[in-house]
Amino acid sequence: MALIMIRSVATIRSGFFKLKRSSSGIRAFSSLLTSPPSKAVVYERHGPPDAVTRLIEMEGVEVKEKDVCVKMLAAPINPSDLNRIEGVYPVRPPLPAVGGYEGVGEVLSVGSAVKHLSPGDWVIPSPPSSGMWQTYTVKEEGVWHKISKDSPVEYAATITVNPLTSLRMLQDFVTLNSGDCIVQNGATSIVGQCIIQLARLRGIHSINIIRDRAGSDEAKEMLKRLGADEVFTESQLEVKNIKDLLTNLPEPALGFNCVGGNSASLVLKFLRHGGTMVTYGGMSKKPITVSTSSFIFKDLSLRGFWLQKLMNPDKVNESRNMIDHLLCLAREGKLKYEMELVSFDDFQSALDKSLGKLGSQPKQVLKF
Amino acid sequence: MALIMIRSVATIRSGFFKLKRSSSGIRAFSSLLTSPPSKAVVYERHGPPDAVTRLIEMEGVEVKEKDVCVKMLAAPINPSDLNRIEGVYPVRPPLPAVGGYEGVGEVLSVGSAVKHLSPGDWVIPSPPSSGMWQTYTVKEEGVWHKISKDSPVEYAATITVNPLTSLRMLQDFVTLNSGDCIVQNGATSIVGQCIIQLARLRGIHSINIIRDRAGSDEAKEMLKRLGADEVFTESQLEVKNIKDLLTNLPEPALGFNCVGGNSASLVLKFLRHGGTMVTYGGMSKKPITVSTSSFIFKDLSLRGFWLQKLMNPDKVNESRNMIDHLLCLAREGKLKYEMELVSFDDFQSALDKSLGKLGSQPKQVLKF
Repeated sequence: MALIMIRSVATIRSGFFKLKRSSSGIRAFSSLLTSPPSKAVVYERHGPPDAVTRLIEMEGVEVKEKDVCVKMLAAPINPSDLNRIEGVYPVRPPLPAVGGYEGVGEVLSVGSAVKHLSPGDWVIPSPPSSGMWQTYTVKEEGVWHKISKDSPVEYAATITVNPLTSLRMLQDFVTLNSGDCIVQNGATSIVGQCIIQLARLRGIHSINIIRDRAGSDEAKEMLKRLGADEVFTESQLEVKNIKDLLTNLPEPALGFNCVGGNSASLVLKFLRHGGTMVTYGGMSKKPITVSTSSFIFKDLSLRGFWLQKLMNPDKVNESRNMIDHLLCLAREGKLKYEMELVSFDDFQSALDKSLGKLGSQPKQVLKF
Repeated sequence: MALIMIRSVATIRSGFFKLKRSSSGIRAFSSLLTSPPSKAVVYERHGPPDAVTRLIEMEGVEVKEKDVCVKMLAAPINPSDLNRIEGVYPVRPPLPAVGGYEGVGEVLSVGSAVKHLSPGDWVIPSPPSSGMWQTYTVKEEGVWHKISKDSPVEYAATITVNPLTSLRMLQDFVTLNSGDCIVQNGATSIVGQCIIQLARLRGIHSINIIRDRAGSDEAKEMLKRLGADEVFTESQLEVKNIKDLLTNLPEPALGFNCVGGNSASLVLKFLRHGGTMVTYGGMSKKPITVSTSSFIFKDLSLRGFWLQKLMNPDKVNESRNMIDHLLCLAREGKLKYEMELVSFDDFQSALDKSLGKLGSQPKQVLKF
């Protein structure tokens, strides 16, 4: 059974290998550099991640002249990874596929045409790239961004999706100045926590909305320690005039929504005339409902943010510079968020936690 | 009874007169230029327009040195006029008030400091200004914009609200080029009809959505004669993939919504990736509901348009130039829409038609 799986999934990675053998003959074959066998989380069909993923051993693959073989150090389980496995994410790798889109690793070997990376370097895929949930990943040099080796491994593994989303959303939509204010829901998410801290570093205040739940007092304290000015549960906002709650803060010009439904409406209520709400998630699975007068008389703008847009080649360098800045903040302790490092062998338990089966849990980061 | 009404409402217009008498004494009083007595539609409290408005006679008022007295020729009944009377419009004149916000008139007399207007000139208030539903209107020179006297009176009376809304919405949000396409609901409205014609003049295609109703076939024909490329009733759009209906048209980058509810969702469905929907009305009184994925994956932007923003002094000249352009198109027969000219004495019947009591009716324009 295990052997059958190995063979069927090996076709994912050995396509180039076979092509090389047949087109270039023995000489090319004998000079091949190959990656070590890799342990990987793979899925051959879309469905519930705990039903369709398997941890398996795969054969090594050719490291071509422009390729870099990376020994993975750590990679997180992100909600978008789960959506890709479920098949509900608009951009996803062809099947069968190895899971994961971000992570950090150490260069093990490089092809003959690789110019800027050497064995021992630490690298992350930037933009994020498929197939990070495995012990050895082979991708072209251009996929990898070299980072400082004194980066905390769990931050290096998670910097390209959530913190970059926070940084870009704070700068891509509305020009904010020190003393301004933003409002957001889903504030306990990693993106939310990063927004609080990155705003604070620029002197920007934050109003934060969280769900009513057991432990909401602790969550409020945690967010305030990160620099949140105000934290409200949704039920606290069932008041006649929400803006009466803004005692010392200016009305926010920018809002972030990752929940939808009533929680999105609360963000809209806080916004000032002419304000913008950016949607980057829909955790409640409910749509966003907006009154006509919000558009006409309050002049609100509603936009969306998707990191995928930064795949655009002309955005790559800008994003890599931002990642270096974010990692610098993480090293200095100015950007932090809760994570749990778990052994790759415990993938199934980390997956269960990521799927919410065990209630609210910290971000799961696989350690290889 | 009539006399009591005259006195109570006369306070609206005689405030300046009284002040002048008491502060400047007999000499000033004797040199006063006054307007003729005026017949006016007034309301002293907010409520249903057919219950709270009255057609009354009012005393003449002082024409101060910077004032212009205009003999009104024609003025429309717009939905926003009715909303102001109802008290549901965010910007409305203090009570008691004379109704109406746009119209055209002929200058009857001017104050001593008036520089650019003379008796006989045709003028319209631009930006729109309160108190147009009366036979003589006195306002400062700066309120009035002189127009060509060969303008058709009903177009001159109605150009500053609906056609200007259409022209601005076509240029203020998305850069459109010849060959591009827009989509709109409420297409039989005057704004909708103007959008079709103004787009067509620029080589821009239009997809138009109308309500299912008796006479929808005639409405389709009418819109196509104006230049509409496609006209669909809402029920025709209950299909699996709405874009299959765009046989020869590009996906629209810009959409206009004046209805809300399902009709707004249909506009969103037609929009291309990265498209913008501008809301300028909410005829169904239903909110706009948007999925999270429309923002994140389809990158839609939702905005609003309100002519009131053009009250901004730095926008006045630009708007007046646009009005001259629109009147020129009306004179040339390139911009047309259906109106019914009714005598001011028949105000009550025109009001009933505007309130929809007699079913769908053309725009009512009062003739003085």
